[in-house]
Amino acid sequence: MNVDVDLAALREYLAAEGLDGYLIDDDASDSDQRYVSGFTAPDPYQTLVTQDGVHLLVSGLEYGRASADANAESVTRRAAYDYQQLVGEYGQYEGKIRTLAAFLEDHEVASVAVPRNFPTGTADGLREEGHTVTVERENIVTDIRATKTDWEVDQIRASQRANEAAMATAEELIATADVEDGILVHDGEALTSERVTEEIEVTLLRHGCALDETIVACGADGADPHDRGSGPLESDELIVIDIFPRDKETGYFADMTRTFARGDPGEEARRRYEVTRRAYQAGLETVAAGVTGAEVHDAVCDVIEAAGYETLRSDPTTETGFIHSTGHGVGLDIHEQPSVSPSGGELKPGHVISIEPGIYDPAVGGVRIEDLVVVTADGHENLTEYRIGLEPTASGRQ
Amino acid sequence: MNVDVDLAALREYLAAEGLDGYLIDDDASDSDQRYVSGFTAPDPYQTLVTQDGVHLLVSGLEYGRASADANAESVTRRAAYDYQQLVGEYGQYEGKIRTLAAFLEDHEVASVAVPRNFPTGTADGLREEGHTVTVERENIVTDIRATKTDWEVDQIRASQRANEAAMATAEELIATADVEDGILVHDGEALTSERVTEEIEVTLLRHGCALDETIVACGADGADPHDRGSGPLESDELIVIDIFPRDKETGYFADMTRTFARGDPGEEARRRYEVTRRAYQAGLETVAAGVTGAEVHDAVCDVIEAAGYETLRSDPTTETGFIHSTGHGVGLDIHEQPSVSPSGGELKPGHVISIEPGIYDPAVGGVRIEDLVVVTADGHENLTEYRIGLEPTASGRQ
Repeated sequence: MNVDVDLAALREYLAAEGLDGYLIDDDASDSDQRYVSGFTAPDPYQTLVTQDGVHLLVSGLEYGRASADANAESVTRRAAYDYQQLVGEYGQYEGKIRTLAAFLEDHEVASVAVPRNFPTGTADGLREEGHTVTVERENIVTDIRATKTDWEVDQIRASQRANEAAMATAEELIATADVEDGILVHDGEALTSERVTEEIEVTLLRHGCALDETIVACGADGADPHDRGSGPLESDELIVIDIFPRDKETGYFADMTRTFARGDPGEEARRRYEVTRRAYQAGLETVAAGVTGAEVHDAVCDVIEAAGYETLRSDPTTETGFIHSTGHGVGLDIHEQPSVSPSGGELKPGHVISIEPGIYDPAVGGVRIEDLVVVTADGHENLTEYRIGLEPTASGRQ
Repeated sequence: MNVDVDLAALREYLAAEGLDGYLIDDDASDSDQRYVSGFTAPDPYQTLVTQDGVHLLVSGLEYGRASADANAESVTRRAAYDYQQLVGEYGQYEGKIRTLAAFLEDHEVASVAVPRNFPTGTADGLREEGHTVTVERENIVTDIRATKTDWEVDQIRASQRANEAAMATAEELIATADVEDGILVHDGEALTSERVTEEIEVTLLRHGCALDETIVACGADGADPHDRGSGPLESDELIVIDIFPRDKETGYFADMTRTFARGDPGEEARRRYEVTRRAYQAGLETVAAGVTGAEVHDAVCDVIEAAGYETLRSDPTTETGFIHSTGHGVGLDIHEQPSVSPSGGELKPGHVISIEPGIYDPAVGGVRIEDLVVVTADGHENLTEYRIGLEPTASGRQ
């Protein structure tokens, strides 16, 4: 991985707390692990951060690849600490602990900080071996990687390009379908949510991205923000399409939502679309370094409430209206820091966030409009190049 | 989820240890969480197993879906314990802990066992609130789900059907390619590992499965079992194709490997192919309930060593020959219990395991042959229906 990872804040924490090191025990599906080690493996491995560098402990099978790919001062194989003999003698659990303890001792590390999701089995095992294990509660590493390098922003931008190709495929299917008895029809068959989803995901694959939770939600399905949708798409109904692909090589996500309707979804649906678009614009205009995620969310709520719809701000128990937060960080995880919500902290240059207001009601359907932006000193740069409009067209995009 | 989950062994453990409950804190990417709760969500939630049932603690956004889908006696939303107020007052970390503590108290649970990978932040937080948290070291739940119900075997069989369709796509591309200067050519372009991988993954998508680590490894690439391969495929070289798709709805994996060569890979490569095939057959013949995974692995090593090749049994440091174990359990995880390795324990009816011997050497290439089988009282049932043969054909399969 090509990220120039800056662990200064983590090392400051270790020094301030008098701790020898920071330890991650996970596979690369944990994005902190992937980010700090610069290496991906499907099985758990250990990454130790000390004042002098980053040190990996891996299996023999991963050793070659880790040595080539990792961002580390050292990569050691478990066998160097007699892993198999220890497992043979003490069993798998204690054998692993003793191997890890030997690795820590080799690096003169007696006390470690660990992330909140560090395995309790490993923490308690190391404690039994006499090590001090303290949970680092503020998620320093997650916070560090919330600020993207230029290279990382480029990866996210590339994932968003793939995303736009997929959205265009979906929009074209919807735009060019026939309408028979209120159902969209394509190639003589009902055009279903599942069919559009499949075409979106195939397009993403051909652009090197993967996604398996695409949302194509029509009518009342669209009123539940997590409903992925199912069955035939209908005319005169709102259709919410939310795609968040992950690049298979780099691991970086992108995220985008558009809402379309074939025919006439009705005056109330159109009104909600316009309010959502204005709320989205208000959100974008508020974004800048130094502004908080909470302030951006407030600007979005202001527009939606002024138009007469509930938000979680005006009524925390509402099940209709704007029933989620304005956005979230995007990077190696689809949901990461910073948050664009009531608890959202200060935005910084290099933060990548979604802005995704929506208005939902089973009686009308759902509207959501979402772009992905990078926070800059003065405002934002939109990573998304895709037309916003309720009526689907065959050319899509811009 | 339709699995009839039997947690008797877990409840026996709790009773024997005098513990009130077993707690999982994770999202559904953790297969124990998915299995016990019967519910999938992208963000972490908590599942408590007591003597009287399974109880979920979820966010408001997931509440509706959890109530409908989960295999639980009760589903409670965090708001019932004033989650937002607690977060507002104590911060996100302590707010979550206090909410969870209130949930445990509500179920009269003071002491919990947790899996090894339970988050240390949650364990230590609960301990600070006066709860006893003990790591259950034997992975009882992982062990329970190693035995598949008939329904689960059907899901895995369906994933393997999709797998076979994808393998047939790949085999046909290789079989029908032209050969120009030792390179396979398709549609006027070099047929690359990446192109075959893409077609495999598109085929899987059209069958409702996802995979993003397909292996199509030619020549020396195939000699590293984890190398996914890259670049143009060549004639007269061994090509290892390993596909392990996951059904997007059910979450069940399947797994299969075939090795092909266009033209003549040479006598040594052919010899290794035959030895691998015989080792695979010996492995299959050994499988039965009551036999251990270690014994199956030994049977495979016997054949390979008798033919003059190293295994990790004959030389634990070898980098050529049979340099991994015979197989692994497959289910909601691609690698799970039981293990078909030197430490593999007793096989039971309903265990689903891969049998995948291989012989590797950068100078010759790699051979691997893999099927997926269910252990039965008397032997096994092969879940795979796919011809084994070095020469690729356009019709593929059987």
